[in-house]
Amino acid sequence: MSNISSKAKIGKNVNCGYCVNIADNVVIEDNVTIGDYCLIGYSNNKNNSKKLLIKKGTKINSHSIIYENSEIGENSVIGHRVLIREKTIIENNVQIGSFSDIEGSCKISSYSKLHSNVHVGQQSIIMSYAWLFPYVILTNDPIPPSYIRKGAIIEPFAIVCTRSTVLPGKKIGFGSFVGANSLVNNNLEPEMIGSGNPFKIRSNINKIKIPNTRKNAYPWISRFQKDYPKNAEKVYLKLRKKYL
Amino acid sequence: MSNISSKAKIGKNVNCGYCVNIADNVVIEDNVTIGDYCLIGYSNNKNNSKKLLIKKGTKINSHSIIYENSEIGENSVIGHRVLIREKTIIENNVQIGSFSDIEGSCKISSYSKLHSNVHVGQQSIIMSYAWLFPYVILTNDPIPPSYIRKGAIIEPFAIVCTRSTVLPGKKIGFGSFVGANSLVNNNLEPEMIGSGNPFKIRSNINKIKIPNTRKNAYPWISRFQKDYPKNAEKVYLKLRKKYL
Amino acid sequence: MSNISSKAKIGKNVNCGYCVNIADNVVIEDNVTIGDYCLIGYSNNKNNSKKLLIKKGTKINSHSIIYENSEIGENSVIGHRVLIREKTIIENNVQIGSFSDIEGSCKISSYSKLHSNVHVGQQSIIMSYAWLFPYVILTNDPIPPSYIRKGAIIEPFAIVCTRSTVLPGKKIGFGSFVGANSLVNNNLEPEMIGSGNPFKIRSNINKIKIPNTRKNAYPWISRFQKDYPKNAEKVYLKLRKKYL
Repeated sequence: MSNISSKAKIGKNVNCGYCVNIADNVVIEDNVTIGDYCLIGYSNNKNNSKKLLIKKGTKINSHSIIYENSEIGENSVIGHRVLIREKTIIENNVQIGSFSDIEGSCKISSYSKLHSNVHVGQQSIIMSYAWLFPYVILTNDPIPPSYIRKGAIIEPFAIVCTRSTVLPGKKIGFGSFVGANSLVNNNLEPEMIGSGNPFKIRSNINKIKIPNTRKNAYPWISRFQKDYPKNAEKVYLKLRKKYL
Repeated sequence: MSNISSKAKIGKNVNCGYCVNIADNVVIEDNVTIGDYCLIGYSNNKNNSKKLLIKKGTKINSHSIIYENSEIGENSVIGHRVLIREKTIIENNVQIGSFSDIEGSCKISSYSKLHSNVHVGQQSIIMSYAWLFPYVILTNDPIPPSYIRKGAIIEPFAIVCTRSTVLPGKKIGFGSFVGANSLVNNNLEPEMIGSGNPFKIRSNINKIKIPNTRKNAYPWISRFQKDYPKNAEKVYLKLRKKYL
Repeated sequence: MSNISSKAKIGKNVNCGYCVNIADNVVIEDNVTIGDYCLIGYSNNKNNSKKLLIKKGTKINSHSIIYENSEIGENSVIGHRVLIREKTIIENNVQIGSFSDIEGSCKISSYSKLHSNVHVGQQSIIMSYAWLFPYVILTNDPIPPSYIRKGAIIEPFAIVCTRSTVLPGKKIGFGSFVGANSLVNNNLEPEMIGSGNPFKIRSNINKIKIPNTRKNAYPWISRFQKDYPKNAEKVYLKLRKKYL
């Protein structure tokens, strides 16, 4: 029992849950799963709705809301109760955790992962292989409330730990590490550790060791390959030359 | 396909979404929109439910839950997945962002705006033209857990930035500014800036400039008029005499 | 209008709301209430789903999601929009507030209470009569991202105030008190007060007085008996001998 518009284009082997509502201008490719109580292709202006594209192999979990005029790449996983607003570009193999709030007009690149309850303000840029842990907030307004939007930039392989807040326009460098509960009011250079409120740069990432060993814990891609392509370490080394 | 009680009073041009559940004692005025999967007029005691009034021109977005015995004013916008409990009074032209949790027994005055994921404890008072940014929490219990409830008071035109917590009974003064991530354990005087944990009073609001200019950024109403009435600046000046 | 599997075992006097979806392997005992738009017994692998048991007298509020392979004890209350993942053991008389995110593989013991928007990471242990206030996060990964999971331990009668974060593997001692907005990076001894970021141990709990009195506010069970059994104070004294 669902409400799927006859105008929507639905691929093969698409699995729609219970009480799903899919609007006119939605295009869903093959092998997509849409969970129960999802609202897909929502538009504030039904007379002029724009395309929402959900690419093949992607899974949207229950109670999620995805606005029109966005794109979700292949083999991505969107958690339960996620809200994704207009003009969001999500590339392939992305994970967005439950309760996350993607405010639109932003880009989330391939292989990046957002844990649950992450808030992504407009104009944010989250690059490939970045990690945002629970309750991270990317803000965008330098003099709230204003019409200005300066998105945060999270460079590839960066880690932003639980409950950190990135202030408008700040850049979290390639492969860097932001500790839990930080208020990031300055850019963080690549492969550096920053934390705290006030935010301070602490050291290079090679200071963090795997517990009970002398091995470096970072870059993390050398020890955590779950769901990543086999060449991910090579991607790290290649991008490192570009960003450092 | 919805479940609208025949006892509910529904005005003209009310637009109800898909899978909406509206209880007996709900009164909805003209030109109201109710989004998909909303639960409207929820009661813990179905034998003695009390009136929920949603005034004309208001929009409730999808997956929201509004308890009985509350009132939502005209031309207000309630986001997605908002929870509003009993004895909440919301005046006209209010905005409540998605994922917000309004715990009931509180008042939210006209033209105030709550961004997403704001938590409003019982006995909170949010006055007109106030702004609460994402993940702001208004607490109320001075010795948790207790039966005592001392609500926070947010005076008109005050700004509380992202992820700040206001401790029980604290007052955020007229036109003042609380920085991001603050733990407000003292009252903040009108038109002052406070921030941090520990919370400190920093200066007068005239210290914050519009980026790349020497112009004062605050009071914000002089530069941000979106969705406000034309006389809003005059309202500021008039109320200023009362509060300062 | 609901979607209740004919294979599910439903007890007497079970009250199912509107648009509820209950999967095959769910066992619901007598006198349980399931709110609207709930997804009960969700499985990522429908060919091999495991039992979800909801014991008698428990209430699940609307828009909640409960995965298979978990157990919810008697007379518990699960709020609106709660997410509970696999391998969660919830004992009797527990309260889980709205918007809470229980990540699975964890145990929440009898008479503990989680307020709204609490995040419980895998391997967390929340003991009886503990209190977690809004937006508390229990983390579990010491070098994120990793395969390591070291859950936080919240001992009986401990209080963790609003928006505190407990770092992986840290123990909050019996009857202790963690102030709001803390980043707990060390164990807290029983009946002690800790707070802040950086986290500091402040004093014994007998330093906090009931406002306008000289009476000790803690242990709280001596002044706050709502919904607790009559012998709760005796339980405190008995367990105190064990933990102190």
